Amino acid sequence: MQRWKTSSQETILDHNKFLRVEQHVVTLPDGTVIEDWPWLDMPDYVNVVVETENGRFLFFRQFKYGVGEVTLATPGGYLEPGEEPLSAAQRELLEETGYEAAEWHHLGSFVVDGNRGAGTGHLFLARWARQIATPNADDLEEQEMLLLTRAEVETAVSTHQFKLMSWLTAVLLALRTLDSQ
Amino acid sequence: MQRWKTSSQETILDHNKFLRVEQHVVTLPDGTVIEDWPWLDMPDYVNVVVETENGRFLFFRQFKYGVGEVTLATPGGYLEPGEEPLSAAQRELLEETGYEAAEWHHLGSFVVDGNRGAGTGHLFLARWARQIATPNADDLEEQEMLLLTRAEVETAVSTHQFKLMSWLTAVLLALRTLDSQ
Repeated sequence: MQRWKTSSQETILDHNKFLRVEQHVVTLPDGTVIEDWPWLDMPDYVNVVVETENGRFLFFRQFKYGVGEVTLATPGGYLEPGEEPLSAAQRELLEETGYEAAEWHHLGSFVVDGNRGAGTGHLFLARWARQIATPNADDLEEQEMLLLTRAEVETAVSTHQFKLMSWLTAVLLALRTLDSQ
Repeated sequence: MQRWKTSSQETILDHNKFLRVEQHVVTLPDGTVIEDWPWLDMPDYVNVVVETENGRFLFFRQFKYGVGEVTLATPGGYLEPGEEPLSAAQRELLEETGYEAAEWHHLGSFVVDGNRGAGTGHLFLARWARQIATPNADDLEEQEMLLLTRAEVETAVSTHQFKLMSWLTAVLLALRTLDSQ
């Protein structure tokens, strides 16, 4: 099964630190050439499913612009330039919640768009978390912190309260990891 | 919890049917105005987890450009203009595999990027599927069709063989749905 080849790439929109668009010329294994394949260069991000030392799960309730409504959300955010995903996850958890966690599991890393890139989401489970500081985030979203039981998390999944795919994926993978331990 | 307001929106790149970029001026509940919020207008897509009438799960093995490597994949694709998600799922299943399914479950619909849109993925489980035609797809990807047992699907999840988030999410939700029935 052969790779596709990128014959050339050119920036066609350099908007800001959140979006740069390239046009790729792509050659398929059968020789077909696609001249106008759009590619999205966007920052990678982390999402963290947090289990506290008391066995509760920490989420936010927030309005999310891309979703267009209020949703449950995990802590997380964009990586700083040059930052490792685990460091970003630990930094975002501390900034957004004031928590730190003793045990970290990498649940997986996934490209956002299978055709156009759009960055990679790195998903983590943080266990034995406890609050050591007050939150100090520069997030734009108003948010309410929730500490849910495992049963409440299952209900939130079943009733579609995680409305962004990466948050839901992180939760589903975290529950699988916890069940396998 | 208040909504953010879109004060204006302007097309800044109209690339092709796969990508149009807007710049939104966004007003937050506290009055802060963000002048350069990028927004991605991209087609919606469907992903289908297929269980055959023999209890096997139908996947593809393919090289995926955005992922940059070979991955397991579900059938699926972009919606045609004006097409309903379920119709698109049934069309893609038939085109890509020659299968039709007697029972359809909508597993959820999720915006791809929580900040910038980038289209919505509609995830389905199709049950009691059987082959009624030969595949007739116009997909660019070379692909190999696999019929996996439930145990093989579980192993594929655990060994990170679904390398795109929406495929993995569809599989995890499908397994949850099957387990609850």
